[in-house]
Amino acid sequence: MKEGLFKVLPVAEAREKLAANLPVELRRSEKKSLLDCLARRLAKSVTARENVPGFARSTVDGYAVRAQDTFGASEGLPAFFTVTGDIRMGAVPDQDLASGEAMQIATGAMLPSGADAAVMVEYTEAAGEGSIEVLKPAGPGENVLRADEDIKAGDEVFPANHLLRSQDIGYLAALGEIELDVFVPLSVGIISTGDEIVDPTLKPNPGQVRDINSYTLFAKTLELGGKPNIYGVVQDNPQLLQERMRQAYEENDLVVISGGSSVGTKDHTAEIISSLGKPGVVFHGMAVKPGKPTLGGVVEQKPVIGLPGHPAAALIAFELLVSPLLRFGGYHELPTGIPPIDALLSRSIGSGPGREEYIFVKLQRKQGEVLAEPVLGKSGLLSPLVEADGLMRIPLESEGTAAGSIVGVYLFGTDYVL
Amino acid sequence: MKEGLFKVLPVAEAREKLAANLPVELRRSEKKSLLDCLARRLAKSVTARENVPGFARSTVDGYAVRAQDTFGASEGLPAFFTVTGDIRMGAVPDQDLASGEAMQIATGAMLPSGADAAVMVEYTEAAGEGSIEVLKPAGPGENVLRADEDIKAGDEVFPANHLLRSQDIGYLAALGEIELDVFVPLSVGIISTGDEIVDPTLKPNPGQVRDINSYTLFAKTLELGGKPNIYGVVQDNPQLLQERMRQAYEENDLVVISGGSSVGTKDHTAEIISSLGKPGVVFHGMAVKPGKPTLGGVVEQKPVIGLPGHPAAALIAFELLVSPLLRFGGYHELPTGIPPIDALLSRSIGSGPGREEYIFVKLQRKQGEVLAEPVLGKSGLLSPLVEADGLMRIPLESEGTAAGSIVGVYLFGTDYVL
Repeated sequence: MKEGLFKVLPVAEAREKLAANLPVELRRSEKKSLLDCLARRLAKSVTARENVPGFARSTVDGYAVRAQDTFGASEGLPAFFTVTGDIRMGAVPDQDLASGEAMQIATGAMLPSGADAAVMVEYTEAAGEGSIEVLKPAGPGENVLRADEDIKAGDEVFPANHLLRSQDIGYLAALGEIELDVFVPLSVGIISTGDEIVDPTLKPNPGQVRDINSYTLFAKTLELGGKPNIYGVVQDNPQLLQERMRQAYEENDLVVISGGSSVGTKDHTAEIISSLGKPGVVFHGMAVKPGKPTLGGVVEQKPVIGLPGHPAAALIAFELLVSPLLRFGGYHELPTGIPPIDALLSRSIGSGPGREEYIFVKLQRKQGEVLAEPVLGKSGLLSPLVEADGLMRIPLESEGTAAGSIVGVYLFGTDYVL
Repeated sequence: MKEGLFKVLPVAEAREKLAANLPVELRRSEKKSLLDCLARRLAKSVTARENVPGFARSTVDGYAVRAQDTFGASEGLPAFFTVTGDIRMGAVPDQDLASGEAMQIATGAMLPSGADAAVMVEYTEAAGEGSIEVLKPAGPGENVLRADEDIKAGDEVFPANHLLRSQDIGYLAALGEIELDVFVPLSVGIISTGDEIVDPTLKPNPGQVRDINSYTLFAKTLELGGKPNIYGVVQDNPQLLQERMRQAYEENDLVVISGGSSVGTKDHTAEIISSLGKPGVVFHGMAVKPGKPTLGGVVEQKPVIGLPGHPAAALIAFELLVSPLLRFGGYHELPTGIPPIDALLSRSIGSGPGREEYIFVKLQRKQGEVLAEPVLGKSGLLSPLVEADGLMRIPLESEGTAAGSIVGVYLFGTDYVL
């Protein structure tokens, strides 16, 4: 057994141990139609191949003019223009615009060559057949979107790994990027263990509880853009567990095994992970609460993670170790993402030194302040997970956080990185 | 034409006009397997039919005892216990526990009848064959989860319309709720109009731009739990538009038509909505920026909404009018949801009186503060939509918000209600 194997590791070191045995990027890429790309992540950065809007457009209903022809115009001394045409939406103006000329233009229509500004119809007056007066000067570029003002050809519009939101799909449509290279969702094999655990479709006997972790982790994997596969509950039978783990390992990009809260099972799980291939278990335990009894394993470049049995602990360990894989393909250069939301901590929270601690919090607005109210409860309770809106962290070196402190909250459903 | 039809309405009144012509709940419900319910909304509240965990469980590794037998115990004067057994995980203890007896128990195992506390193994010492000493008193219930401590049979665990998150799926698994009544996603027919708009798969000519709104609204509908159907771009041809709108109307639960930025098209759209059935258009325009040129229509109890052509305006109008339908089935008793995130406004923003204004903002952490930085730009630009992390509102009665104010931010991806 390797030296230091039973040392409980800080999260950063736990990730390093795994990263040292994994490829930098676990994910493959595939081409998908733009409309199928919501909530996918870009496998490559996207560079604009065209300008948007692609031509100078009016942003008002009015008249296209040369700005210099309007200089000095006022209600008392309006500038006079001959109206030489009307520009149809979607059409190329059928003539150029010369000095002293104006063309009628609608919002979004194309500026004629020679024009460099648009005057709102409100600042014009009819001045007899085919001519208008302009009552206010317009600067060059006024009420005009330049051809490359929204997006400039050659600019990077999204970096690799960008998570595509609905407005991003429209933005890419504007650029004609109707097929994209996106990452293939990683498949996650999910196994639950424990003699007291039964499938949720069964009625538990006294002493037994239903399998919560497989269902939570199935849904969490989907939420994070992965592809979950449930391999069911394996009671504490080492041979059956080995067979099930090998099957999950062969059929997925990574495997999580939750449970085995009893000491014997934890040992079985570690032995089986190591029996599947090299290097096997790379750490036993993380300096994090909840989530300490986490096994980090890698088998031939594939992560195999042993999660704690308690639902809250399993969820935190999954967020710390599996979420970065699903969302970033590894642990290298994890972004901090959107800054955590700030809230006022409603009560003091103590923490043991030498470990990171995660607290489930509920956000509440009281007297104009956003409060983070810790949802506390005995170890093993499910209720805090469902009452909470997010998580707060007490760092490794801290012994607690006082009531009234401003704390960062990782809001469930947002693209945070713990 | 009805009186007051051309009055621009505040958002609340616009919603009331629509609500007055719609059923209270637009959605039907269906039964789905629990694993298919992530991001679905409950059609009925869920009441626990069982207690969870369902039996008294130890939360520590140690010994089950009667608390009163430990009273007064100390290191100097330990309490003596006869160990009468070892409780296996998932099993019913094979005997009851009498005074002066202890049974070995693992975290999560079932307390024997007669026991009311568990003592951590760390506070015990072996005292010869089959007996232990307890060095510290335990209170009744100490280190024990009661049978109904997590969830109590008969309690409502989720209200109707609750949006199911990953931890909720696990929670329902714990209760054995493996099939749920959830709302069927509303189908949304999406049409774009405008002579300058071309399908994103085509190369636009000068003067033309690609259809952005169909793609953004398709993705936004998915994001909000709806089922989008794109009916393509209809150029300003009233007969074709009428046919396409009728088809979309017949095939969907609601219809959105974006664009028609030119005055003539807007008129066509309104006429066609009214021609489809009663009551037709119920308001022309909302007192909101961006989003003013929004047409509210209902045809035989089905919403038909005319959205502005500008992408930002279309998105805001969609958030205000369509999002409540997709997420709450109507406009009645809209919740305020999670309180908006608070942030410091980085610069002053003016607003016209008599209208609500929505500003795209980017969140940035600077010197420990979370700043909301307005992403400004000329009307019609797409870039602010993709640079922003969320929205802030300047209320109807306000003329602006000063730099340094604390503002609520509706963070994209969270379950907010504008």
